[in-house]
Amino acid sequence: MLMTDIYFMQQALAEAWLAFEEGEIPVGAVVVTGGQIIARAHNLTERLTDVTAHAEMQAITMAAEYLGGKYLQPCTMYITLEPCAMCAGALYWSQIGRVVYAAEDVHRGYRAMGGKLHPKTEVTSGVLATEAATLIQQFFASKRK
Amino acid sequence: MLMTDIYFMQQALAEAWLAFEEGEIPVGAVVVTGGQIIARAHNLTERLTDVTAHAEMQAITMAAEYLGGKYLQPCTMYITLEPCAMCAGALYWSQIGRVVYAAEDVHRGYRAMGGKLHPKTEVTSGVLATEAATLIQQFFASKRK
Repeated sequence: MLMTDIYFMQQALAEAWLAFEEGEIPVGAVVVTGGQIIARAHNLTERLTDVTAHAEMQAITMAAEYLGGKYLQPCTMYITLEPCAMCAGALYWSQIGRVVYAAEDVHRGYRAMGGKLHPKTEVTSGVLATEAATLIQQFFASKRK
Repeated sequence: MLMTDIYFMQQALAEAWLAFEEGEIPVGAVVVTGGQIIARAHNLTERLTDVTAHAEMQAITMAAEYLGGKYLQPCTMYITLEPCAMCAGALYWSQIGRVVYAAEDVHRGYRAMGGKLHPKTEVTSGVLATEAATLIQQFFASKRK
């Protein structure tokens, strides 16, 4: 595992923690290019009352705004959870260079849902997976109380 | 074909025409509930420099804001083109009651891309399909000149 991958995934996890504290399903994402974070976001579906407000969607919008172009080929997105079909579709359109995600989402992840990323997008999974999965499990356990 | 479906698809086509005039791929969408249009949008990916700014995504956000809730079960979305995998994923999360689209998108539509709508979403296709497809063909023909 690359040290830089661990570092940037920790940044995505910090975003996920912000979501947790706000009562949102704790998923975070950061976009990196040239060793620099150019976008960071966390799930805001509850606060914005909007099913489209996943961390990845916001991060794509932010990164494109930063770059001044809608394609993200030189970028890597770090996400604490496997993207859903919607987010995979958005990442597909962005032609992002690389996606690194932590925990798998066996039920609602894009692979289970039949979605796909762009064929040129490199995918790495499992970076800090336990930390990310534990956070989500804690969230749902706290909701059941 | 229901007269109301034709009427509301004409409204979605009017949105697609606005996109055409703005140099955007001409796709429009409206969301209807109780016989009333509560959201209308067209593709703005170029103007907003954002691959996520499809008509459907904006319409979902607007409709949820109007309703004050993120689920769209009582709504129908009329779209001039078969949704892509991203938009199908967003419609899935919204649990929208019904989707009516005009033209098929054989290459990038959600069926070709492996995406899916919610099992409870009723789907109707082919309403004003020729009008919608012609508009898109005209758009790409004008771009090739």
